[in-house]
Amino acid sequence: MPTNVIGYAAHAAQDALKPFRFDQRDPRPDDVAIEILYCGVCHSDLHTARNDWGWTTYPVVPGHEIIGRVVAVGSAATRFKPGDAVGVGCMVDSCQHCGPCEKGEEQYCEEGATFTYGGTDRHDHSITRGGYSEKIVVSEQFVLRIPDGLGLKGAAPLLCAGITTWSPLRHWGVDKGSRVAVTGLGGLGHMALKFAKALGAEVTLFTRSKGKEADARRLGADRIVLSTDEAQMASVKGHFDLIVDTVPYVHDLNPYIPTLSVSGTLVLVGYLGPLEPMLNTAPMVLQRKSVAGSLIGGIKETQEMLDFCGKHGITSDIELIRMQDINDAYERLLKSDVKYRFVIDMASLKA
Amino acid sequence: MPTNVIGYAAHAAQDALKPFRFDQRDPRPDDVAIEILYCGVCHSDLHTARNDWGWTTYPVVPGHEIIGRVVAVGSAATRFKPGDAVGVGCMVDSCQHCGPCEKGEEQYCEEGATFTYGGTDRHDHSITRGGYSEKIVVSEQFVLRIPDGLGLKGAAPLLCAGITTWSPLRHWGVDKGSRVAVTGLGGLGHMALKFAKALGAEVTLFTRSKGKEADARRLGADRIVLSTDEAQMASVKGHFDLIVDTVPYVHDLNPYIPTLSVSGTLVLVGYLGPLEPMLNTAPMVLQRKSVAGSLIGGIKETQEMLDFCGKHGITSDIELIRMQDINDAYERLLKSDVKYRFVIDMASLKA
Repeated sequence: MPTNVIGYAAHAAQDALKPFRFDQRDPRPDDVAIEILYCGVCHSDLHTARNDWGWTTYPVVPGHEIIGRVVAVGSAATRFKPGDAVGVGCMVDSCQHCGPCEKGEEQYCEEGATFTYGGTDRHDHSITRGGYSEKIVVSEQFVLRIPDGLGLKGAAPLLCAGITTWSPLRHWGVDKGSRVAVTGLGGLGHMALKFAKALGAEVTLFTRSKGKEADARRLGADRIVLSTDEAQMASVKGHFDLIVDTVPYVHDLNPYIPTLSVSGTLVLVGYLGPLEPMLNTAPMVLQRKSVAGSLIGGIKETQEMLDFCGKHGITSDIELIRMQDINDAYERLLKSDVKYRFVIDMASLKA
Repeated sequence: MPTNVIGYAAHAAQDALKPFRFDQRDPRPDDVAIEILYCGVCHSDLHTARNDWGWTTYPVVPGHEIIGRVVAVGSAATRFKPGDAVGVGCMVDSCQHCGPCEKGEEQYCEEGATFTYGGTDRHDHSITRGGYSEKIVVSEQFVLRIPDGLGLKGAAPLLCAGITTWSPLRHWGVDKGSRVAVTGLGGLGHMALKFAKALGAEVTLFTRSKGKEADARRLGADRIVLSTDEAQMASVKGHFDLIVDTVPYVHDLNPYIPTLSVSGTLVLVGYLGPLEPMLNTAPMVLQRKSVAGSLIGGIKETQEMLDFCGKHGITSDIELIRMQDINDAYERLLKSDVKYRFVIDMASLKA
């Protein structure tokens, strides 16, 4: 018997989110049923609710930065037990047998990972419903363990903003002494600063606004460079092994390429679209530099990140909101008026 | 006493190259004096002779694919002796103490490597003269040993076309079983096919012309993909670990990105300039793909390439010309009418 649950859904691109009742499946043998405690608010939630990418199927229940407690487990599920603090991120399933899946990079599944909301379940073809809800049922393969002692509210954004910045830092080998810059100080950027610092890197924030300096230093930046100041940009010429670019809109990459060291990489994690103005390849060829992209991270890597966060006491800086305030939060998100992530307190759903 | 030598020089952008007498320094303690036997004709020679890049100082003696025999060595030079078959590539000096130089990546010298022609000597501030000449004097640190048994004529293009394609193949770890594609079948492209094949990779040529199939297979391609044929492009979706793009003019990279595997890289070695049409980052982010550049290679790496060529019997496919025919060769080069590299027989200078 499916369970009828309450969540918040968008029913059309121009409509506010509102309460929505839907059925949640009974746990299949490998499933874990989770009572959702907190859910982070990602910019993708807003894009999807408003059909900015043109692929939304309504109604959609957003939310893929999910923290909760296990309330039931399927007959064959062995990794979790009721009461465990767990997380669910952007994916709830994948093919499990392609090259990327076998390498633990389910986010690059050749058949396409099943996303946490608005995706199609691989078994019963139902539409997946996200974390703006009281409950979720997920295969235990895609459930993360939250380390003891880690604050649960601030852990929610680790499931997307966290892993999205952690994965490129690890893939490009950031370690003690690496020279890392972060572009953009939002939900993703503030996590990139924290992670890079905790990994032992020398950390710089590129920003267009002087007002961010104190906060950036508190979050882990050793240096702030005003990207609009030519002298400051020249002072870091050839300096960075890796630039993690979290800016979510089109912007000119050309001024940043000279700040990369020989063999350095600028990795985009926030912007998908044409590079305008045109990227000039000359400095890339002349110094073997790369421009790359990166998407969230695999499940194994996400668990490694959470364990690292547990060890280093890293969580996201958040503002807790009620589920009923989600539409206001979206408006503030559009103005970057949040430090640095909204997290929904799901207890508010029952209020 | 400097030696007066004869070479061929361009004296102005619009002028044909013609005989030119100039002084060549006596060997300094670490120098090797080389009688030039063969010199490859690189597209950069033509660009420089005609001031296409706007930085040419006239007169200029082009040529940086130099093969010759040692005729004298400086008092402190120990690595070579008269009679040795040697090569000189694109660089004749570098600062020798910056990070890249210490890693043997002199091509990325932070102070700028001294290029073989049109550069400024770091000691006496004279202008360097290239391989379209009977003799060259070079620090032994920048002289390469040609393995016994390697055909000298065909070895000349290894010094630029060879190392330019070898270096990215090695930097991005191409090995047995790697899946490599090459874009463009010219001086660089034909070397990339030979190297990738000899390294044990599965090798594909992207081309816009069906007529190149037989030659591409002979040079090492296992597969030819017509880049103008959508079905053929779709058949290699997600396939390549590395694409070595040797095309020397602006072209659309977007159709090639989907043919990269997850974490794959397209490396440009021939085109320096703005990417038009605009590069779309979406497929790069969604599958962690990179666009990179690469420039020639370091001296140690060049020697490794030459030793590999000696072991595998690899040389360039060349057409031998007389020095007097260089202007005609440039015209044919502009029409890609060469398989696959012109090499000047320097004996013709004395004829």
